Amino acid sequence: MATTPRRRAARIRVGRMRDGWYSARNDSVAVEEPMEVRLEVPGEGGAREHPVSVTMRTPGDDFELAAGFLFTEGVVTDPHALGDVRYCRDVDPQEYNVVTASLREPGAFDPASLTRNFYVTSSCGVCGKASLESVEVMGCRAVPDGTLAVADADVRALPQRLRSAQRVFDRTGGLHAAGLFDASGSIALVREDVGRHNAVDKVVGSLVLSAGLPGSERGLVVSGRSSFEILQKAAMAGFPMVVAVGAPSSLAVTFARRFNMTLVGFAKSDGYNIYSGPERVTGLGSETE
Amino acid sequence: MATTPRRRAARIRVGRMRDGWYSARNDSVAVEEPMEVRLEVPGEGGAREHPVSVTMRTPGDDFELAAGFLFTEGVVTDPHALGDVRYCRDVDPQEYNVVTASLREPGAFDPASLTRNFYVTSSCGVCGKASLESVEVMGCRAVPDGTLAVADADVRALPQRLRSAQRVFDRTGGLHAAGLFDASGSIALVREDVGRHNAVDKVVGSLVLSAGLPGSERGLVVSGRSSFEILQKAAMAGFPMVVAVGAPSSLAVTFARRFNMTLVGFAKSDGYNIYSGPERVTGLGSETE
Repeated sequence: MATTPRRRAARIRVGRMRDGWYSARNDSVAVEEPMEVRLEVPGEGGAREHPVSVTMRTPGDDFELAAGFLFTEGVVTDPHALGDVRYCRDVDPQEYNVVTASLREPGAFDPASLTRNFYVTSSCGVCGKASLESVEVMGCRAVPDGTLAVADADVRALPQRLRSAQRVFDRTGGLHAAGLFDASGSIALVREDVGRHNAVDKVVGSLVLSAGLPGSERGLVVSGRSSFEILQKAAMAGFPMVVAVGAPSSLAVTFARRFNMTLVGFAKSDGYNIYSGPERVTGLGSETE
Repeated sequence: MATTPRRRAARIRVGRMRDGWYSARNDSVAVEEPMEVRLEVPGEGGAREHPVSVTMRTPGDDFELAAGFLFTEGVVTDPHALGDVRYCRDVDPQEYNVVTASLREPGAFDPASLTRNFYVTSSCGVCGKASLESVEVMGCRAVPDGTLAVADADVRALPQRLRSAQRVFDRTGGLHAAGLFDASGSIALVREDVGRHNAVDKVVGSLVLSAGLPGSERGLVVSGRSSFEILQKAAMAGFPMVVAVGAPSSLAVTFARRFNMTLVGFAKSDGYNIYSGPERVTGLGSETE
């Protein structure tokens, strides 16, 4: 697979007002460009290409982003069925903004997933409960007990370890990050993007492309907040634990509890909150109340 | 129009680790729930209802969110054509998660907008340039010179003024905010949501429902970063100026320059960066190079 030649940060001219002084200078901003994902599905009479999505993203790790998105959104139901991932060849000039992923077998494609958003109506119309059920329809199951345990000190160290690995953020101040950690709190992989869900898709996509799923011995650390969408993607990948630097939403908490996942929020060096599954954090010390 | 009875923050039990002590306590989290938007379009043989989108949002200001989304995404091309907005009546039990907006005339509905994302292919497939052009197709034009001017001191005061008005954030730490300001830097309206684009849609939707568009004498201040999507929504509403507490993306900068908008980033009490349109900020003092 060819890697993208596209830049993740761009230099621009900017006016800077600081302490009463205005001056022009060069600065870096995070690149944002649309990317289209297409899925090529084999069938009788030849392969058929389905347009799947157009997402604003930061260039780089585009194949991981495509693979991760297709899997975590339930479009491709079996990560092992994904074959070749490539930049679309019939685009001229080649801007590296159209990615085509091909399936080895048609059975791993769920056409309903492309329109599911419009038809999640249940007895309550759409609601949080129906959203959780739709994730189960996509094949997601509760995480078993006993998977992954991380020491309190390592949980507190994760935000700084993630931050240290954010190379593009240092230049632009404008990127979300997602990282993969193991039981020792070591971060094996970090991906950045202007969209926080994209950063997660890139991490999961990396595991899809390297046959590393399910990620039942890994946890996900994110630089921002945790929402339903982040939890869904983590659950699809099989991660038992999500550690977020920011706040969780109500539905993220409900999701984590229903799927037996550990959810940490407001993670900092001196503490954090545990919203679900505290048994996966060891060395918590005295528990009061 | 009935207002929503739904809560914006929820009380939950949480484990708190701080300075070596672990304890259980009650805490608040921002509510996240899906909302479906439907559009009722009159026509021969009766009105037809189109499913438009399902978005995760924080309940509250739901009609504004629906109206703002429909207009800023180009689904409804004339804000004055929007009639009644209501919770869907045929949902049982009523969960206030399905909103139907009705059009007075069919001509203001662009059916292509519902599938546009899949077909923005131009000579470069999808790319930033094509994305900007698609906004022009939606009827967006460059802002004229001479609209809105805000003093440097007021630009620096905007983040704190926005923050002071964020009532739900105080309890949850988990909500984005968008506010509407005028030439004096006063904030007339603030909306909060777990999604930063939703907060902007609620602000714009408020103007749609009160016949307050175009907003050529107003500016938009946002608590987070600025991206293509935020600039698109601001441009559709006719705002000449966007002030963000966070960083801009490359495409946000390109967008602002192309549409002659003023874009401020990293806004704080002691300074900010101007990425486009510095002439709308007065009292900048000495300009050095």
